[in-house]
Amino acid sequence: MSSKEIIEKQIQAQGDLVRQLKAAKESKEKIAEEVAKLLQLKASLNDGNQTAPSNQKFVLKTPKGTRDYASEQMTIRNSVLDKVINVFKKHGAVTIDTPIFELKEVLTGKYGEDSKLIYDLKDQGGEILSLRYDLTVPFARFLAMNKISNIKRYHIAKVYRRDNPAMSRGRYREFYQCDFDIAGTYDEMIPDSECVRVVHEILTSLNIGKFVIKLNHRKLLDGMFEACGVPADKFRSICSAVDKLDKSPWEEVRKEMIDEKGLTDEVADKIGEYVRLSGKGELVEKLLADSNLIKSKSAVEGLEAMKLILKYCQIYGTLDQVSFDLSLARGLDYYTGIIYEAVLLGETGSGDDVAVGSVAGGGRYDTLVGMFDPKHKQVPCVGVSIGVERIFAVLEAQLEKNKSKVRTTEIEVYVASAQKNLFEQRMLLCKELWDAGFKVEHSYKKNPKLLAQLQHCEDESIPLVIILGESELEKGVVKLRNVTTREEVEVVRGDLPQELKARLSLVTNCLA
Amino acid sequence: MSSKEIIEKQIQAQGDLVRQLKAAKESKEKIAEEVAKLLQLKASLNDGNQTAPSNQKFVLKTPKGTRDYASEQMTIRNSVLDKVINVFKKHGAVTIDTPIFELKEVLTGKYGEDSKLIYDLKDQGGEILSLRYDLTVPFARFLAMNKISNIKRYHIAKVYRRDNPAMSRGRYREFYQCDFDIAGTYDEMIPDSECVRVVHEILTSLNIGKFVIKLNHRKLLDGMFEACGVPADKFRSICSAVDKLDKSPWEEVRKEMIDEKGLTDEVADKIGEYVRLSGKGELVEKLLADSNLIKSKSAVEGLEAMKLILKYCQIYGTLDQVSFDLSLARGLDYYTGIIYEAVLLGETGSGDDVAVGSVAGGGRYDTLVGMFDPKHKQVPCVGVSIGVERIFAVLEAQLEKNKSKVRTTEIEVYVASAQKNLFEQRMLLCKELWDAGFKVEHSYKKNPKLLAQLQHCEDESIPLVIILGESELEKGVVKLRNVTTREEVEVVRGDLPQELKARLSLVTNCLA
Repeated sequence: MSSKEIIEKQIQAQGDLVRQLKAAKESKEKIAEEVAKLLQLKASLNDGNQTAPSNQKFVLKTPKGTRDYASEQMTIRNSVLDKVINVFKKHGAVTIDTPIFELKEVLTGKYGEDSKLIYDLKDQGGEILSLRYDLTVPFARFLAMNKISNIKRYHIAKVYRRDNPAMSRGRYREFYQCDFDIAGTYDEMIPDSECVRVVHEILTSLNIGKFVIKLNHRKLLDGMFEACGVPADKFRSICSAVDKLDKSPWEEVRKEMIDEKGLTDEVADKIGEYVRLSGKGELVEKLLADSNLIKSKSAVEGLEAMKLILKYCQIYGTLDQVSFDLSLARGLDYYTGIIYEAVLLGETGSGDDVAVGSVAGGGRYDTLVGMFDPKHKQVPCVGVSIGVERIFAVLEAQLEKNKSKVRTTEIEVYVASAQKNLFEQRMLLCKELWDAGFKVEHSYKKNPKLLAQLQHCEDESIPLVIILGESELEKGVVKLRNVTTREEVEVVRGDLPQELKARLSLVTNCLA
Repeated sequence: MSSKEIIEKQIQAQGDLVRQLKAAKESKEKIAEEVAKLLQLKASLNDGNQTAPSNQKFVLKTPKGTRDYASEQMTIRNSVLDKVINVFKKHGAVTIDTPIFELKEVLTGKYGEDSKLIYDLKDQGGEILSLRYDLTVPFARFLAMNKISNIKRYHIAKVYRRDNPAMSRGRYREFYQCDFDIAGTYDEMIPDSECVRVVHEILTSLNIGKFVIKLNHRKLLDGMFEACGVPADKFRSICSAVDKLDKSPWEEVRKEMIDEKGLTDEVADKIGEYVRLSGKGELVEKLLADSNLIKSKSAVEGLEAMKLILKYCQIYGTLDQVSFDLSLARGLDYYTGIIYEAVLLGETGSGDDVAVGSVAGGGRYDTLVGMFDPKHKQVPCVGVSIGVERIFAVLEAQLEKNKSKVRTTEIEVYVASAQKNLFEQRMLLCKELWDAGFKVEHSYKKNPKLLAQLQHCEDESIPLVIILGESELEKGVVKLRNVTTREEVEVVRGDLPQELKARLSLVTNCLA
């Protein structure tokens, strides 16, 4: 076959695939991806036949697992981030930024088997670089490199993972992380309990429904494994298995522990008894009375720490939403103390609460910075990462459900003209209003129709419109119209700024 | 030689190089770079000798041409960007975002010989990707892909260029761009003159000194080349030569035109006559009376457009800072109409203004979007890019010169304790004040010294401090201290929120 014939065969096969996917009602993303391949094949066929300009050869798309954010999405994002940042600032956090890529070695050995998901840059003669995978490792590198031993900082930025993401479920290869961390040597559980308070304030201010903040402690987990008879070299891998309990039933996790990780039935069942426990202070007391458990020094330390943080949560007013949960494990190796996870709650048909998704997570990592310091100087850290992508998705879905419209601009006043040839008058008035600090726009056409201008104001939810007409201009007045009520008044030109200020303070001009 | 001996030789040579650079008082960046190489060599030598943990092997640095932004820099940046965004919003712009990388083909053929500076990602099995080089090409791709034919948007994001940047002069491989563009088919020079107004408002609001906004028109440049006798196929390359006039004297540019680009002396000298001209409306009139120039249809069209935009600049109140400048050419190929460049002015010793650096640039590009559309559907665009990196550098230098301190947090009230064991009382008061919306912090130590707490407030410019003491707690009052004046009053605990609100509105609590 000629190469042309080969491509034609490929096009035929790909076309069949697309039709099958459509018939099977596969996800839009999946279909779009295969359609893109089809178009690419067709384009490559054309290349041989004609001298198409080089800019036409490729399929117009964003890279796999990424997307553009249109203005509506950006408006929702910025409004969420404003609220999140406000809470961080209420707690005195500064912000920093680090490059989007790091020397590859900085990331090596920090993410376990997930390292294969790191994006590498091409070696173009120079350093070997990778895109950042999270914000915690760059933060630890930043602290060690700049010899900073205490800081309270937030960092909101994009991170990159070469995952095969379920885009339909809001997971992408490029996504935002939003981290708050407290580094420094302080008294026990004080910064740790403030992190819980920060998560609590954020989720409350976002008004996205009921939530619970689960707490556990790595030392208690280790002590519990010890008490159950897990060999010390299996603590981390059993911890990973426990971490799956939020997605899998106990029976599956038990099977993994026995079949894959080599625990005996008896040991696994002992763990099973513990990990179904959750509660608050009374659970701490119960476990402190567990003669088997408290043989482990690590378990007792973990329980004492839990007791303290629960007391602080009570003082900080977060205890009602806090749950001490022995099934919480967190995947990452570097946690050394308290661990957190906040979960949104939905209602089941029968009125019970059910977890619908994790929206924050974190914990204490006291040894990560030392991994970067030449002398292994430790800087203890504790922090939380707010799952803003999940929150964006929840809010976008809410808006769609309520058919709410998002205002993407903040224009306060539109300057319209009722007749032809008033274009320069419009420009002049815009100039005066911009000078006075108002958010103003007008049509970029010289002689737009009045109806089209008014329609634009309604479409864009612009609250006020000034209508210029020749007769009013002669009298030194303008017509001011409330777009919602359609009520119109005449205002003396010189009084416009005060009049606009007064009327704008009355109209509700915000997004939900 | 063994590999160990080779490395030892290399270390010796590199050590000599570092000493030479220090002796020659080379730039800090250069020296740091070579020291880093030296340390890397030393580290690789150790690898063979001992089993150092893998995290110790590499030099702790950010990739070449990049840097971390500490909290002081972020504070300056965010304050500049807030002002810039406010102006964009005053003009009704929405914002969008695009992925940090694009399919390599999207960028191919858009940047001429600068394409070699594009960062590529490693082929890890999948699409061939590159980091974005600017925000204009992704914007054009976004418009074509989403079939958007009119939008007014701003986009502030990082872009990447594998340049050999002069970091000492504030140029980096990773830097922010800050673009405002108006896409759509509108009446002539209306969006174009609003872009000038946007630049004018931004530079005025930033208060960074005198500036001039240079304007020219690609059609006039082409017509001028035509009238001077430049062959049509040399228009773009002669345009690139003219573009160097902001950095090189005419004599050098003339030499390039003759020696490298093959113009005759006579043609080059004719161009020289024109490019030294600048002015406003009177210059347009003078050129419209130039019998040689107006033989070119393109020149006349360019001049009529200039006449119109200068009139609109007068209406929009920007004309005083505008200069019609025939030496302005702009490097990029894709401009098709008006072009802009804003320049900051410094004073020479003799009191004359002198250009100290470009802080904004842009122009009209009516054919770029069509390059992405399968049917070559055009979407006319005009826009400006604000040179925020230059602006940050200018402001950082100003702050350093004035020894001004930047406040990096917004904490309003610090809760201190005067005696031991008041820690939980402090926590409780913080909780109450956070609940009331105040920005509050306290020490993460249980029993900090009062003096240390007060010193922290002074260091961080926190305006108010509440001092808890046992005797006051018994009376149901707290001591409220103004950190600057050191004046103290007793306030009834229940009155704190109102009292704090009143006092905070009095203290100046902002950064310069």
